[in-house]
Amino acid sequence: MIGIQDIRQAAERIAPHIHHTPIMTSRTINAMFGAEIFFKCENLQKVGAFKARGAVNAVMQLDEKTARCGVITHSSGNHAQALAYAAGLRGIACTIIMPDTAPAVKVAAVRGYGAEIIFCKPTQESRLRTMEEVAQRTGAHVVPPYDDDRIMAGQGTAGLELCEEVEGLDLVMAPVGGGGLMGGVATAVRATQPTAMIIGAEPVIAADAKMSLQTGLLQPPTDRLTIADGLRTGLSEKTFAQLRSMGVEIETATEDSIRRGTLLVMSRMKLVIEPSAGVTLGVLLEQPGLARGRRIGIILCGGNVDLGSLVFG
Amino acid sequence: MIGIQDIRQAAERIAPHIHHTPIMTSRTINAMFGAEIFFKCENLQKVGAFKARGAVNAVMQLDEKTARCGVITHSSGNHAQALAYAAGLRGIACTIIMPDTAPAVKVAAVRGYGAEIIFCKPTQESRLRTMEEVAQRTGAHVVPPYDDDRIMAGQGTAGLELCEEVEGLDLVMAPVGGGGLMGGVATAVRATQPTAMIIGAEPVIAADAKMSLQTGLLQPPTDRLTIADGLRTGLSEKTFAQLRSMGVEIETATEDSIRRGTLLVMSRMKLVIEPSAGVTLGVLLEQPGLARGRRIGIILCGGNVDLGSLVFG
Repeated sequence: MIGIQDIRQAAERIAPHIHHTPIMTSRTINAMFGAEIFFKCENLQKVGAFKARGAVNAVMQLDEKTARCGVITHSSGNHAQALAYAAGLRGIACTIIMPDTAPAVKVAAVRGYGAEIIFCKPTQESRLRTMEEVAQRTGAHVVPPYDDDRIMAGQGTAGLELCEEVEGLDLVMAPVGGGGLMGGVATAVRATQPTAMIIGAEPVIAADAKMSLQTGLLQPPTDRLTIADGLRTGLSEKTFAQLRSMGVEIETATEDSIRRGTLLVMSRMKLVIEPSAGVTLGVLLEQPGLARGRRIGIILCGGNVDLGSLVFG
Repeated sequence: MIGIQDIRQAAERIAPHIHHTPIMTSRTINAMFGAEIFFKCENLQKVGAFKARGAVNAVMQLDEKTARCGVITHSSGNHAQALAYAAGLRGIACTIIMPDTAPAVKVAAVRGYGAEIIFCKPTQESRLRTMEEVAQRTGAHVVPPYDDDRIMAGQGTAGLELCEEVEGLDLVMAPVGGGGLMGGVATAVRATQPTAMIIGAEPVIAADAKMSLQTGLLQPPTDRLTIADGLRTGLSEKTFAQLRSMGVEIETATEDSIRRGTLLVMSRMKLVIEPSAGVTLGVLLEQPGLARGRRIGIILCGGNVDLGSLVFG
């Protein structure tokens, strides 16, 4: 379990290396929902997602000896770029294990931050085995994407900044995938604005976190392919415990609502966000009663989306 | 002809009603071009485009008697929304003449700002005739999209804000359609940073402004359909004279470069822009020598783009 002091220390540690992202509002969206919504723009964060916070917090804490052997993780998403960015800041080696099916654009992005990529078969087993082999050979330190106190504390700094800047929030929302962001953010909210409700948002077709909290038993992720691809992963024991202890509730959105929520932010706020960042607004589109009359903080988790299909004119 | 004093007065007049938009930078884009580029984010302006500036400047100057009869224009683009917004601020009637082929989303946007829409046939002749008929019947005051000193002065405030915030610019760029934005911005740049080059950006398939400046004769717009749909229109005598007198040069970009420039801002800066706002970067992609080693101010003119084709996941 992490506490607010871990998040405050993380905030101080990472401040020189990450953006204190802006909080934006939209008169149109506020009018639509009859609410005051404050969007914390982690899509404008380094590497285009909140993941930079946790990775920098983890890498900056390594002792010299550990750091010298470099860091390693398996990911084809934002955590890979984030760890590569953090390792580059510290001038240490970074190895990313990626499935050989990863899109070229993601491979290029990670290489752009100076990491070495080792490909594996696109199965969870191959990822883990390849990572362990390489880690044993090189002595590289494993930095997991969410099942890690340093990561959770780092991600929580986004919630801390939100709560320090916007007073009197009735509700704070963030998407839930592995639970690293939600675990950290919930901890920051509980400590600084204890009366606020905390709602995690999840695709209805990948609602393992909701089920885990309902049953009290950690549920595995489904294999359904939601467009909110950052949320396909499941909670870990660590993040599950954190969410339970902070009184997080989970609400779901359909794929159509996620799409509408994503396009609402893009068209009205002129901000590019990834579908994982549109799930929160998707929940409110389905349950407008959750929003009405409330002051709401929403973490827009990232903006890394493939725009190649966009047709102009 | 307008002068810097007109722009300064406009700035004061419209300040309570428009956003002083942020200026953003991207380390990645700077590294790509070997330049320092400052993006003035008029996509984050009221109604999603710089057009709010000119329309508000025009409407706020009307005497009481004129204002009471309302305002009118013909447009299916950003000027229609901008005039509707400005009229709403002053609490006066606004009529927009639109071709009956206008996309439903644009019709809805203008209605959303409280304007009345009257449809006409999709020809320039039908637009003008319908507008004149309605104006005569109602006494509504015509606010043209660019061929108007108040409009040009209003749009120029975007350039004034840029030049006041960023010192020592070597080059300022804006897209050129009717020339209202470029005329105003060039006037602000000449007065405040007289040594800066000023380059207007135009699609190569709709390069009437370039031809006009080269030949010294006002050329009609082509009927080629560029994806930069805001730039399909031609200069007027008034904007043409302003561009000539301010020493504006014009450079062009292909449709492919416009698309790449637009997606570059969207993917790296996480800002939604319309293709008309990507033409400037399109020019620099084709002529990187224009950028290298320079401090460059670019007006991102707007963010009103149809995102319906976007496929996620």
